[in-house]
Amino acid sequence: MGGRLLASSEPEPSLSGIATSAAHGEDSPYFAGWRAYDEDPYDPVTNPSGVIQMGLAENQVSFDLLEAYLREHPEAFDCGVGFRENALFQDYHGLKSFRMAMASFMETIRGGRVRFDPDRIVLTAGATAANELLTFIIANPGDALLVPTPYYPGFDRDLRWRTGVNIVPVHCGSDTGFQVTAAALQAAHDAAVASGTRVRGVVLTNPSNPLGTTIGRAALEDILDFVSRNGHLHLISDEIYSGSVFAAPDLASVAELVAADGRSVAAVAARVHVVYSLSKDLGLPGFRVGAVYSRNDAVVAAARRMSSFTLVSSQTQRALAAMLSDAAFAASYVRANRERLRERRDHVAAGLARAGLACLRGNAGLFVWVDMRPMLEEATVDGEIRLWRQVVAEAKLNVSPGSSCHCCEPGWFRVCFANMSLETLDVALRRLSRFTERRSNKRVQN
Amino acid sequence: MGGRLLASSEPEPSLSGIATSAAHGEDSPYFAGWRAYDEDPYDPVTNPSGVIQMGLAENQVSFDLLEAYLREHPEAFDCGVGFRENALFQDYHGLKSFRMAMASFMETIRGGRVRFDPDRIVLTAGATAANELLTFIIANPGDALLVPTPYYPGFDRDLRWRTGVNIVPVHCGSDTGFQVTAAALQAAHDAAVASGTRVRGVVLTNPSNPLGTTIGRAALEDILDFVSRNGHLHLISDEIYSGSVFAAPDLASVAELVAADGRSVAAVAARVHVVYSLSKDLGLPGFRVGAVYSRNDAVVAAARRMSSFTLVSSQTQRALAAMLSDAAFAASYVRANRERLRERRDHVAAGLARAGLACLRGNAGLFVWVDMRPMLEEATVDGEIRLWRQVVAEAKLNVSPGSSCHCCEPGWFRVCFANMSLETLDVALRRLSRFTERRSNKRVQN
Repeated sequence: MGGRLLASSEPEPSLSGIATSAAHGEDSPYFAGWRAYDEDPYDPVTNPSGVIQMGLAENQVSFDLLEAYLREHPEAFDCGVGFRENALFQDYHGLKSFRMAMASFMETIRGGRVRFDPDRIVLTAGATAANELLTFIIANPGDALLVPTPYYPGFDRDLRWRTGVNIVPVHCGSDTGFQVTAAALQAAHDAAVASGTRVRGVVLTNPSNPLGTTIGRAALEDILDFVSRNGHLHLISDEIYSGSVFAAPDLASVAELVAADGRSVAAVAARVHVVYSLSKDLGLPGFRVGAVYSRNDAVVAAARRMSSFTLVSSQTQRALAAMLSDAAFAASYVRANRERLRERRDHVAAGLARAGLACLRGNAGLFVWVDMRPMLEEATVDGEIRLWRQVVAEAKLNVSPGSSCHCCEPGWFRVCFANMSLETLDVALRRLSRFTERRSNKRVQN
Repeated sequence: MGGRLLASSEPEPSLSGIATSAAHGEDSPYFAGWRAYDEDPYDPVTNPSGVIQMGLAENQVSFDLLEAYLREHPEAFDCGVGFRENALFQDYHGLKSFRMAMASFMETIRGGRVRFDPDRIVLTAGATAANELLTFIIANPGDALLVPTPYYPGFDRDLRWRTGVNIVPVHCGSDTGFQVTAAALQAAHDAAVASGTRVRGVVLTNPSNPLGTTIGRAALEDILDFVSRNGHLHLISDEIYSGSVFAAPDLASVAELVAADGRSVAAVAARVHVVYSLSKDLGLPGFRVGAVYSRNDAVVAAARRMSSFTLVSSQTQRALAAMLSDAAFAASYVRANRERLRERRDHVAAGLARAGLACLRGNAGLFVWVDMRPMLEEATVDGEIRLWRQVVAEAKLNVSPGSSCHCCEPGWFRVCFANMSLETLDVALRRLSRFTERRSNKRVQN
């Protein structure tokens, strides 16, 4: 059955609207940049002039801690142990031991200020599926979700593509440090409703990808009030970087806020749902572990049923349950990982400054949000994409243009710093310095 | 954030049509029977009067072969090896080594009569997701797929629930041994079209769950001709039991037929898609490994993109790549597993005969299709469900009533035989004998 297809006489068979639509958004420069890297990947020895991948939010700075744990506890990842039991375990509740370990890890990350009930954790094969599944649950095709910009480019696929749900972007600019406000949400909501759109919820990422910032506690309380006032709205809080907050202010999770005692807050708890994953904080995207957490019984039940489409390998559940239920290890990992991310972030910010570039003051995540507006020949999306092509072609750095994150201000770029060695990062920063230097020399000459 | 929710003042927040619909079909007796088992599970020592689960198509008869392999090759499942690389691997193409091993295993199962191109294998977290994903790709909401009955109860969820696609059942009865024919498909198609339904494809399971039979080569060729003649149709062939054919005739896979040379066959190849999984033939449902295979580039591209929602843990891919790429082991496993399933099947058929029950002559799968029509008080679905309740309550056996598989003839039951020890199976068969004996005594007395 190998080989290519289609007898020449046969017309192309028709596929669905979903299969043939571009709503997945994967034709954006965000994904194009990945291909540029794939075609000519940097290697310090074999391809020192190749493209350095700074468009991938991957955490490699703390692998040695996980590896040290595995050396000390080889039994944790020996998947021959309990083989028969794991092989058969397909209950869509997930392993109790793993859900307990996940709940405990999510509590550790939030400084023990909130409890998670393991029976309310619905496991999914990554946050990608978790976000799609919550969208399927809270919105009908044609309905809309409010999403502050700039946002993670994958949301176009995760929230829209198969669900038929629309994203109403809530544009945030540099004047507010790109922070969304309840007033902006209300305005976007009212405009959408006035144009006949049924708005079903708000999706926040906290900490934000691509900004690398957390939402302040007061702003988040305002947003909860906004959701509370609008009884038809749900709030999805994607907190997959919650363990990667490395500087003040500490994360204020909606999970904490809805566990507080206020009347208005209690009333909104059933409409607030948290997404988590081990891909970023632990650096394990290959293991495909995501989760939905909700205090709403109907949402938990529907999500659990939908999780049939996206279950986590029992082998992986078992291995990670062993590691994460070691509370002392988990706490020390989180502490060390935060410290290392902070160092990385400071290192990058200093390198950018040497290249004459400023960035948003971030306190979380695996990336910085860099202001390259002064380098634009033209303050438009076209101008931004031209600059991006030059950065890829000349500096051989794949960064992500803000327009791929639906940013409303041209000239901002997301630059990832945790998916490479410090040596490679320094090569990248030197390339960027040379690039900006050449550009300013050229400008002086012109 | 633990504890239960909803301040009493708050109305239940509204959820989507999908979340609140029952189209997932999980309220059927098929799933209710699982709960009956869960509440009072049989154990030879601790609960010898508990319910024996015969409603679960799980393969436990060949675990010792997998365990022996792991004892000889402990490195295969030591997931500490290659930890860093696996942890990061989230490419939705899947590990090349694993796709090669899957292709080779799928070839072995089909006696080497067909080749599979590893680059056309799209991995999914189980066949559940594979079937949903293909439905999303070939049909729009409101469109329909033809599915011969009786069919796997999970199809209501997998094909319909989130896709909004309808199932048009193509009823097959005992007069044809429940075998679907091209004529029946054409008639169901034409009737659906006449009523204004847009039919987009046919979904076959070959071998069939719940029948335990394969589709004959000639019948399958007729079906391919039917699909070929109707250029708007796709054919999804769910072949998750393809390695569990234990008696003649050998499996005729559509993969083989479309690889043949005939003109009409070449013309249909781009509309034929195969679903596979390691859950049944290898008995590894907990590992969540499914796959889509298609010779249609556009289908492969869309499926691969959708697989973002349902990726397989890289840890699991690596472990299974090591095992399945051992061709000698794979071939001997398949041979031994088939022999054991045949023995089990014969053993069950003999036990059923002792209980005065006949079953369909099957040659594949992990279950038999048992004719309990003579025991019905009334030849209706209600009569069947009453009998099923008695079997669960009195014989303490959870079997699956045919109506949960949308069978059009009341009185047929699916009885699984591979998810328990031979000792437990014998307890179950004795219970069934006593049950039928009591019933016939009662009938004599009345």
